[in-house]
Amino acid sequence: MLPHRPEYEPNDPDFAARVREGFASQAVMATLGIRIEALGPGWVEFDFAPPSGFTQQDGYLHAGVAATALDSACGYAALTLTSPGIQVLTSGYKVDLVRPANSDRYTARGWVVKPGRKLTVSSAELLGSDGRVVAIMTGTIVAL
Amino acid sequence: MLPHRPEYEPNDPDFAARVREGFASQAVMATLGIRIEALGPGWVEFDFAPPSGFTQQDGYLHAGVAATALDSACGYAALTLTSPGIQVLTSGYKVDLVRPANSDRYTARGWVVKPGRKLTVSSAELLGSDGRVVAIMTGTIVAL
Amino acid sequence: MLPHRPEYEPNDPDFAARVREGFASQAVMATLGIRIEALGPGWVEFDFAPPSGFTQQDGYLHAGVAATALDSACGYAALTLTSPGIQVLTSGYKVDLVRPANSDRYTARGWVVKPGRKLTVSSAELLGSDGRVVAIMTGTIVAL
Amino acid sequence: MLPHRPEYEPNDPDFAARVREGFASQAVMATLGIRIEALGPGWVEFDFAPPSGFTQQDGYLHAGVAATALDSACGYAALTLTSPGIQVLTSGYKVDLVRPANSDRYTARGWVVKPGRKLTVSSAELLGSDGRVVAIMTGTIVAL
Repeated sequence: MLPHRPEYEPNDPDFAARVREGFASQAVMATLGIRIEALGPGWVEFDFAPPSGFTQQDGYLHAGVAATALDSACGYAALTLTSPGIQVLTSGYKVDLVRPANSDRYTARGWVVKPGRKLTVSSAELLGSDGRVVAIMTGTIVAL
Repeated sequence: MLPHRPEYEPNDPDFAARVREGFASQAVMATLGIRIEALGPGWVEFDFAPPSGFTQQDGYLHAGVAATALDSACGYAALTLTSPGIQVLTSGYKVDLVRPANSDRYTARGWVVKPGRKLTVSSAELLGSDGRVVAIMTGTIVAL
Repeated sequence: MLPHRPEYEPNDPDFAARVREGFASQAVMATLGIRIEALGPGWVEFDFAPPSGFTQQDGYLHAGVAATALDSACGYAALTLTSPGIQVLTSGYKVDLVRPANSDRYTARGWVVKPGRKLTVSSAELLGSDGRVVAIMTGTIVAL
Repeated sequence: MLPHRPEYEPNDPDFAARVREGFASQAVMATLGIRIEALGPGWVEFDFAPPSGFTQQDGYLHAGVAATALDSACGYAALTLTSPGIQVLTSGYKVDLVRPANSDRYTARGWVVKPGRKLTVSSAELLGSDGRVVAIMTGTIVAL
């Protein structure tokens, strides 16, 4: 099983700057208060405290918002391994919501399970502030 | 194949009021401007024009936001068929993003594929203002 | 919502012969007794009566075998729309098993939701001999 | 991230015998030559050399057969943690096929990500004889 900080060889020595720049251009990340906490070749870690206005009926974080963080974690993990100039797009993902998202802070970790020139498969997990897994994702990322 | 407005027998004559009340309690629906356009036993249709601040790097709607609308469409479609007093929760879903989400308005349709006392499977699709499918989802909904 | 026999324009006038030839080269189809019942540009329909030896603990068809039929239905639906010489491979799929697979015959229908030069998204459904849906699938197919 | 041999407390001291008995009653496991290699509370490991007749067009293991092994790994991992007398059924799963399944032997590992009285989420991975990951799965398992 792959660790959540796998060791891949990057195809671009400046991958970190490129990923941070791409991340900064996703308005929804700022809207949700999501920041890059750490990243390496093949993985990223985000940290966020969701603002109000993103809850479901019980006051928990809406599953779609949890998925937004995980989806970006899958995608940016893939982007750490692409060559310069390559964009990536999520083709699809599955998310499993395994515990109530009732934390005030979250960590989202994304890592590449299998890199590819055309398709990359990434996994991601959302952890509450108690370190327990709230949601897991597997995503398929297409290089353009 | 099930139509997107299937004909089920509701277990609660007041299902529509109950679903609208539940929907109104999801803060994220108001934040994203999502409204119930129509609903029936086993299906719902939402309409929305996403506010700014929810885009990805190309200015398109972020996949996670598309998924938020579809996830709620799956869940509320399931809720139309529950007995009074039963809550539902999404256990997980898969979403496929098949076209760029670059519309200014969207319709999200959710319908029940298989109702169940414990588990319901719903499908949903997101359409742009040109009527083309932007994303599809299959969700697993748990009754509590 | 797409019908299960959508109307696409084929890229290869001889798509039917090409698909039948590819199908004949999948040993597992013969092992499971799966035959092509009908096909058109963007869709296929299989028919089969599973031989013994493929059941789970209750004597029902094992979910993995149901998925084998659906996976091939998704893939061959995609193959009906490719140009000559293009091979396809399933990158991944989600299957939902909504009713017990306790029929003696099954129909598997696959159809293309969104064709693409690189990636195709297909859906499929498995019906028992009573016409009820036993399982549904969404698959991601890569062109090689 | 959960290890593939997580440490859970079993609800049944005789879980191993119960799981082996259930496994023996799945005809498809014998048909595919799948054996339990090891198991513990929350996880199972299978080993198999697929017989001929289960290949796709390139002579590789058909994705549906890979999924059959992984599906059972997810389900039996869940079954290690149930109380005596409880049966489990797969509600659905997603599988990602990340490398060609061209090995002569495979290991399938399944482990519980989140146990539950009603629903359990399990993950599984298929490894070729070179130890590389061929496919990954996340499954939703219902207790009956």
